[in-house]
Amino acid sequence: MRDLVEIGMGRTARRGYALHEVEIVPSRRTRSSQDVSTAWQIDAYRFDIPLLTHPTDAVVSPAAAVEIGKLGGLGVLNAEGLWARHANVEQVLDQVVETLDDQDFTALTRLLQELHAAPIRPELIAEAIKKVTEAGVTAAARVSPQRAGELTPDLLAAGVEILVVQGTIVSAEHVSRNGEPLNLKNFIADLDVPVIAGGVHDYRTAMHLMRTGAAGVIVGYGSGVASTTDSVLGIGAPMATAIVDAAAARRDYLDETGGRYVHVIADGEVDASGDIAKSIACGADAVMLGAPLAAAKEAPGKGLYWTASAAHPSLPRSRVIPAAAEDEIVDLRTLLFGPSADPDGMINLFGALRRAMAKTGYSDLKEFQKVGLSVRG
Amino acid sequence: MRDLVEIGMGRTARRGYALHEVEIVPSRRTRSSQDVSTAWQIDAYRFDIPLLTHPTDAVVSPAAAVEIGKLGGLGVLNAEGLWARHANVEQVLDQVVETLDDQDFTALTRLLQELHAAPIRPELIAEAIKKVTEAGVTAAARVSPQRAGELTPDLLAAGVEILVVQGTIVSAEHVSRNGEPLNLKNFIADLDVPVIAGGVHDYRTAMHLMRTGAAGVIVGYGSGVASTTDSVLGIGAPMATAIVDAAAARRDYLDETGGRYVHVIADGEVDASGDIAKSIACGADAVMLGAPLAAAKEAPGKGLYWTASAAHPSLPRSRVIPAAAEDEIVDLRTLLFGPSADPDGMINLFGALRRAMAKTGYSDLKEFQKVGLSVRG
Amino acid sequence: MRDLVEIGMGRTARRGYALHEVEIVPSRRTRSSQDVSTAWQIDAYRFDIPLLTHPTDAVVSPAAAVEIGKLGGLGVLNAEGLWARHANVEQVLDQVVETLDDQDFTALTRLLQELHAAPIRPELIAEAIKKVTEAGVTAAARVSPQRAGELTPDLLAAGVEILVVQGTIVSAEHVSRNGEPLNLKNFIADLDVPVIAGGVHDYRTAMHLMRTGAAGVIVGYGSGVASTTDSVLGIGAPMATAIVDAAAARRDYLDETGGRYVHVIADGEVDASGDIAKSIACGADAVMLGAPLAAAKEAPGKGLYWTASAAHPSLPRSRVIPAAAEDEIVDLRTLLFGPSADPDGMINLFGALRRAMAKTGYSDLKEFQKVGLSVRG
Amino acid sequence: MRDLVEIGMGRTARRGYALHEVEIVPSRRTRSSQDVSTAWQIDAYRFDIPLLTHPTDAVVSPAAAVEIGKLGGLGVLNAEGLWARHANVEQVLDQVVETLDDQDFTALTRLLQELHAAPIRPELIAEAIKKVTEAGVTAAARVSPQRAGELTPDLLAAGVEILVVQGTIVSAEHVSRNGEPLNLKNFIADLDVPVIAGGVHDYRTAMHLMRTGAAGVIVGYGSGVASTTDSVLGIGAPMATAIVDAAAARRDYLDETGGRYVHVIADGEVDASGDIAKSIACGADAVMLGAPLAAAKEAPGKGLYWTASAAHPSLPRSRVIPAAAEDEIVDLRTLLFGPSADPDGMINLFGALRRAMAKTGYSDLKEFQKVGLSVRG
Repeated sequence: MRDLVEIGMGRTARRGYALHEVEIVPSRRTRSSQDVSTAWQIDAYRFDIPLLTHPTDAVVSPAAAVEIGKLGGLGVLNAEGLWARHANVEQVLDQVVETLDDQDFTALTRLLQELHAAPIRPELIAEAIKKVTEAGVTAAARVSPQRAGELTPDLLAAGVEILVVQGTIVSAEHVSRNGEPLNLKNFIADLDVPVIAGGVHDYRTAMHLMRTGAAGVIVGYGSGVASTTDSVLGIGAPMATAIVDAAAARRDYLDETGGRYVHVIADGEVDASGDIAKSIACGADAVMLGAPLAAAKEAPGKGLYWTASAAHPSLPRSRVIPAAAEDEIVDLRTLLFGPSADPDGMINLFGALRRAMAKTGYSDLKEFQKVGLSVRG
Repeated sequence: MRDLVEIGMGRTARRGYALHEVEIVPSRRTRSSQDVSTAWQIDAYRFDIPLLTHPTDAVVSPAAAVEIGKLGGLGVLNAEGLWARHANVEQVLDQVVETLDDQDFTALTRLLQELHAAPIRPELIAEAIKKVTEAGVTAAARVSPQRAGELTPDLLAAGVEILVVQGTIVSAEHVSRNGEPLNLKNFIADLDVPVIAGGVHDYRTAMHLMRTGAAGVIVGYGSGVASTTDSVLGIGAPMATAIVDAAAARRDYLDETGGRYVHVIADGEVDASGDIAKSIACGADAVMLGAPLAAAKEAPGKGLYWTASAAHPSLPRSRVIPAAAEDEIVDLRTLLFGPSADPDGMINLFGALRRAMAKTGYSDLKEFQKVGLSVRG
Repeated sequence: MRDLVEIGMGRTARRGYALHEVEIVPSRRTRSSQDVSTAWQIDAYRFDIPLLTHPTDAVVSPAAAVEIGKLGGLGVLNAEGLWARHANVEQVLDQVVETLDDQDFTALTRLLQELHAAPIRPELIAEAIKKVTEAGVTAAARVSPQRAGELTPDLLAAGVEILVVQGTIVSAEHVSRNGEPLNLKNFIADLDVPVIAGGVHDYRTAMHLMRTGAAGVIVGYGSGVASTTDSVLGIGAPMATAIVDAAAARRDYLDETGGRYVHVIADGEVDASGDIAKSIACGADAVMLGAPLAAAKEAPGKGLYWTASAAHPSLPRSRVIPAAAEDEIVDLRTLLFGPSADPDGMINLFGALRRAMAKTGYSDLKEFQKVGLSVRG
Repeated sequence: MRDLVEIGMGRTARRGYALHEVEIVPSRRTRSSQDVSTAWQIDAYRFDIPLLTHPTDAVVSPAAAVEIGKLGGLGVLNAEGLWARHANVEQVLDQVVETLDDQDFTALTRLLQELHAAPIRPELIAEAIKKVTEAGVTAAARVSPQRAGELTPDLLAAGVEILVVQGTIVSAEHVSRNGEPLNLKNFIADLDVPVIAGGVHDYRTAMHLMRTGAAGVIVGYGSGVASTTDSVLGIGAPMATAIVDAAAARRDYLDETGGRYVHVIADGEVDASGDIAKSIACGADAVMLGAPLAAAKEAPGKGLYWTASAAHPSLPRSRVIPAAAEDEIVDLRTLLFGPSADPDGMINLFGALRRAMAKTGYSDLKEFQKVGLSVRG
């Protein structure tokens, strides 16, 4: 067990560490970055880079998902977002960008709330997924635990290959006095496609979610520049600690099952490329990126960013923010692989990961999870 | 006993934690927020939400107290404030708001000092309390320990149902060479209404105040955006630790008395809805809110905020601040229960509490006091 | 011994605490502030408030020293400052204030350097001291250890009653290959007036200075808004820890000598009235104030502030800063005793101390040194 | 071993301390600053001050290296920088400064990238080195580990006296599947000049580098106002801890070899003169300065600053920043030895070191490495 702090008489709390408090310390022979692999495989799907997209319409459209797939990552469509509700999404997004021009951010939130009040139309989701599969790219879509049962059949019919069940907090079993809650274990057992589920925030919920049969578990809820879950709910978990704990659950579950490896996917606190390296260094198998992708020319938000919880009808927990200025927009390939003329780690995100691994002497992601760490004050 | 730090040779200090250093960590099954109760009961009085108001005229008028009561909380009138001294309070407050327009905040403090130099008129307090009781709402009023003896008979006669004896620091016994000080135990024993008293800042003073027969004990002194007690007096107590310690006193006093449960009411460090959840999570039974209520249309301060100590004649310890801009003002119902289009936790304060409890799997406030906590660096 | 931190392999450092990390925690019965005494006595001299002035011309002129004395404190003239070098100080200070109008702060430093290049004229110091003694007020003057031997005879002849030997760091013995250094013990033994010496920064140097026969030892070097000694020299000592350590030396020296009580005077980190209370709470007998006095109408700097090291000819270690705006200037009596309409602890400095003592239940300064402390993150 | 922190279940990290967290605590007799020596000797080369320059063209030209040498330090030319690629460097730098005028810092980075795309011309390096040696000053040049083998013969032929092999991270052996990597031990064994190599960031890599036969080991990678390695790669090591660890390696290697003393040179976190004193206090034998020298009239960057990694073709890790305004530029002699009218520790850098040593009672650098340290919160 890790460091406990007595915050008052008889009450202890665990000290959690954020990614920005942690640093990677080189202590081995250096290595050429050409000799480094950033490949990642989950279930039968192999990716050149350990990248999933946070399921926000600000970053992922069907076209963006295709491009991300071609570049070696996994784009995750939000099956409850704008593409699922509006046939004319382009116009809808233009409206959002126009509202931005007034600098009235509450109005932006309100507009997103209204746009998400439109009903989900299965044929729109199906169309979106087909665009991805027809391009020869792995198709993934996200549903909330509340609507997973209702929406999944349509997604499967449309050809989704990886299902992402994602909310701020997802537990193995949701308790409800009326109505039938989602039992993830039963739900997953009935599916033929691999499921990635989360977020979880500690060892225990990670372990419970692993036991549901999920292929991957998401740690965190996309905390970063836009998310306000901590202010609104008081709930939070610094990511370095949350990732390490989930990795401990992965190890223990591997032992418990005699070999089932559940992937740990980190979704939060990535502000620059160095945080991707830190996430893997803490034990993540892959990262889920949101805001850093908003600078891609292919991102539908045109520089704007918000997380999925920005559109909650009564309690939004994400700001809608301008994440990249017009002259900072670059194409996705450059964003992921460079070359960069930006010294702040916003471009060449995965070239930077490769170089961090090389400079510390590691040749693959799994090995790199063991690199030495230092904590800053 | 909790962590002690040696600040120098032979001198130890306790490490205290503020609410912003603490986070709630979900580790159980999630729950539907419809299945959550935020009800709170003290003595014979039951409330839908664990809300008392900080006794400042910036937030509570008789009309506001009525509205707060109807919405399920408890408005506490300041029996030594403007309503107790001026018949034409509306005009008086207009004057305050006009002074604000000059952006001269020292002038605002000076004006409040002058307005509080007028004598307290019992008939005005009586009138105010009657407005509340006649609306069928529980009437509560605050007196300072210095004037409790003098003002209480009038308050009781006017029909006050809960008496709040509140100062920056209230001890069970006030020592004075001349004049007769307040002995809270004797004072409370003579009353027929429940008394809430404070603030206290540690286990020992909390315990002493519980032994006076108080129904509730206030922890803190309304520290937050306006309060400057720390700068002025050097006195302070980070709220997470102070609440945990007072909750420990509650537990020990419960044992000592074989069953008397004294409520712990937290008054400080609530900047957004998440801090309400954190206060309960640390062990509070209810919270006393000030500045977050300044955004209510019903708040007399029209967006301005100050604590009761802003008007001290020689040593004010609260700024008078603009706490909410004109376009941020919403009606009290929306402020407390939403819906919100604000992602920063300033609106839907108690919907957020309900949701925090649901997401961590707790169904009532008492249970929620046991939720897991994490500490941030 | 206090907490040691291993900053690297085989190297430990002591964790030091600044005043702003420390808070006073009330845990006793409260007391009426009329029943509190802030009196302080050193040698045969008794003061109503535990106040000495930092020996900077920005704050102390002969006239200001008289006023401070009448109000119960001790003004310390800088025997190596402008009053000691220029007959027309008023004009000289007007020049400083005019230079300020250009907002060129380097030019201000350069001007002070030039003004301090003029020779020290004993007759000017004598005149200044006589103005103080003739007003019936205790006269104190500061010399640097380098010039103590040379200047002291003139000071004594002029009637100085308390001698302050003060530099950034003063040790009991100064080592020098050529020239004769000051041996403080011999120096003090030869004098008939009490000597206050410092600054010291830890237990050991405090103890050594106590053994020289000094009546008081200064802890710190006036760190605060203006001082830059930490940036320039890398030398520093957080005040809470430094005061506690010096108080420990006082206790041990009292035991060692069977009763000689050497006063601990804290000179640094006082930004507002609460820091005075914290200094005493950590164990100081009195505080030396600089910047907070710059807001006095009687301060020669007219709102400007600098410490004595601002005028060093080759390595200045204090900025010259505007410490109080024109409309913040009040007379000294109000600054020290109120009434105040400023909520930030800049006015009514010693009324605030009195109130802090009352609210925590202490009736004199010596007792108040035992009040409970809390440390913040 | 030093303090370990458990950042999560089963994963520890070392707590590292930055220079700004550390302070020097005087605890001995003070000393006259005339009696202090700041002399430093490595191999057969003796220097009046423990100063090397960070090998960036922003700070070092051949002419600047001559001046630095005459003033007692060691200028290190970058053998892969602009002087090695362009005959008309003056014009090239004018172009950089003009681009600055547009305030487009990405354009500045891009320009540096383009300028560094020109081929290295050995005759230009030779010319530069000869300018230094002909002035009777010790000539030092820096090569990257990647190009050390290729460029060193020309450097030796040109008369280089100290070779610096420097990259962000340099290990004793670089691993590569194709091509032949640099084996530093063999490389150094074949050379007749002393080699200084680095950066290293912990005890282990420092020890390995010492075993290659290097005369000096560089700790750090020039972290400071311009460097962004932490954001881009996630790699970092707070300097106080890194220096202490390297000094521990120096001590152990001294024991292991029965007397070979390898110098520890600190390159990072020096923002003001006090940080030089802190670096030595932590155990460094000398410091490598970059940004603080940008204010020298002799610095080619004319107030601009960037580190060597600013020009990386695909992943720059340093901003190009205006480090000194036009009116802050002073000649190198004043920058190093004063007099200063700047209170912020930007001028009289080594006069400040001398004074810090005197005030804490140390007479040479080696002794000063034992001065007491305090850690701040």
